[in-house]
Amino acid sequence: VTPRLVALDWGTSSLRAYLLGADGAVLDSARADEGIMQLAGGDFAGAFERIAGAWRRRWPGLPALAAGMIGSAQGWVEAPYLPCPAGAEDLATALTAVPGDALLVVPGVAQLAPVPNVMRGEEAQVFGALALRPELAGRGRLLLPGTHAKWVTVADGRITGFETYMTGELFAVLRSHSILGRFAPDGAPAPSAAAGDAAFLRGVAAARAGDGIAGLLFSARALVLTGGLAPGESLDYLSGLLIGDEIRAARPDPATPLLLVGDPALCARYARALAAFGVTDAAEVAEATVTGLWRIACVAGLVANGKEDSP
Amino acid sequence: VTPRLVALDWGTSSLRAYLLGADGAVLDSARADEGIMQLAGGDFAGAFERIAGAWRRRWPGLPALAAGMIGSAQGWVEAPYLPCPAGAEDLATALTAVPGDALLVVPGVAQLAPVPNVMRGEEAQVFGALALRPELAGRGRLLLPGTHAKWVTVADGRITGFETYMTGELFAVLRSHSILGRFAPDGAPAPSAAAGDAAFLRGVAAARAGDGIAGLLFSARALVLTGGLAPGESLDYLSGLLIGDEIRAARPDPATPLLLVGDPALCARYARALAAFGVTDAAEVAEATVTGLWRIACVAGLVANGKEDSP
Repeated sequence: VTPRLVALDWGTSSLRAYLLGADGAVLDSARADEGIMQLAGGDFAGAFERIAGAWRRRWPGLPALAAGMIGSAQGWVEAPYLPCPAGAEDLATALTAVPGDALLVVPGVAQLAPVPNVMRGEEAQVFGALALRPELAGRGRLLLPGTHAKWVTVADGRITGFETYMTGELFAVLRSHSILGRFAPDGAPAPSAAAGDAAFLRGVAAARAGDGIAGLLFSARALVLTGGLAPGESLDYLSGLLIGDEIRAARPDPATPLLLVGDPALCARYARALAAFGVTDAAEVAEATVTGLWRIACVAGLVANGKEDSP
Repeated sequence: VTPRLVALDWGTSSLRAYLLGADGAVLDSARADEGIMQLAGGDFAGAFERIAGAWRRRWPGLPALAAGMIGSAQGWVEAPYLPCPAGAEDLATALTAVPGDALLVVPGVAQLAPVPNVMRGEEAQVFGALALRPELAGRGRLLLPGTHAKWVTVADGRITGFETYMTGELFAVLRSHSILGRFAPDGAPAPSAAAGDAAFLRGVAAARAGDGIAGLLFSARALVLTGGLAPGESLDYLSGLLIGDEIRAARPDPATPLLLVGDPALCARYARALAAFGVTDAAEVAEATVTGLWRIACVAGLVANGKEDSP
């Protein structure tokens, strides 16, 4: 089997590399704690050599394509944001090469209105997910939960707009650095699964009935102080508040197909919250970045033909 | 002049003591970094002796009254929350004595619905502010900005309900621990006053037009990345987003008199944001805790008569 592409998912805190064959099949992969934050010294070439050098020496001329924060101003080379609407073809014609042409980098996507927004790395996930679920490409919405959750609207195969919710990061900083984490410090016993789930759904319901978290966050503390919630359940309630408020603000529309893209456990948590909003038919895709990089490489003509193997 | 009361504002991170004479006039005061967090070992009696021992030995029998987190479960003695509606008379008849009766502690106030909420220490500020601005006691709203901002509704001299907004704490944790603080690290040059104020009001306007910060927070980063905001202005914009969202959620009503209670610089910042919502007639009171403690002590009969001096 002849490899066709080195695909890199190169983010803030980690670097993942995949050796892809015909049809984008994963032949080999590697992971390193060499995200751009760890490479503050800027030894991107060294990190690339460590993770993919052996592949590139064995198969000279193998193209390499990366997505993620490696294309930011703090990365190896800045790949300027493309404006919405942006399709895989737009990305494929706007790749930026690092000095020496060893690697091409996918641009991020930006929208300027109504609320300014940027993504970098998620665009590869979006086009990978659409390749796996082409029925959504015509009209749909993709939800990529995580540190900075994205809700991405697609039409005719292009990203037409998106929103960012800092849900994962908000939860992390509130748990670790605010008074809301005091009742459930690290190492404290977790509630039973049933109690945790009930507290989570209670937070979702409060957020759904509210009009923003501003006046609700403190209830994660006040409920405990007034005897309405066990201390160990306060973080599940807080998680429900934050995820519920994200969904409230994003206003999922029953008429627009929704696709959840990401870690299965996190997607399952979102699916439970979505059900409280009456959204029960969201599809799920676990991993889509590699598929997206393969698809962009195909459109860009980096790989001869996605469908045929070497002669 | 004979002292009548030792008044203590004993919170999480500091202890303030006031020696009060007739009419609640401040005869002497002291401050110590002996909040209940610093006294984790629990030497509350020692801290009380250090700050007020000399007064109490010189004037034996001088009553002492405290408000704040000293009455929490982590404090010297737990002074259980009173339910809303709660007036100064309700607080005065529910004081809790520390073992040995050296000190009486004002209870906090709780509401259970619609959103569970608690306050501890702010109730003294509220009744102090109402003593200074009695025209609001019949019907009004008090805004106490800060780490956990409170919006307190009063009617017929009693607290009938209140909301808590973690605006100050949210700003602090987002600045220090989230990606939103990256563009303006500690020590970076601040924007000009005019640029900072413009960015602040821009954040207020965005929050006013929005329906919660969930989908807006990330714009404090995206605006910089898309060239719409200088990096040094991002924290002023974020402050405007958070304060603006607090005001949006609190829905100040032009027909209900509003009183700002607290640090003058912070109150001025809120006044600028309130003006963007069309609220331009809010009154201000800088310091009200001591007045509130004096008033509660008078109602409780701890001081013979607030109006007459000793014979």
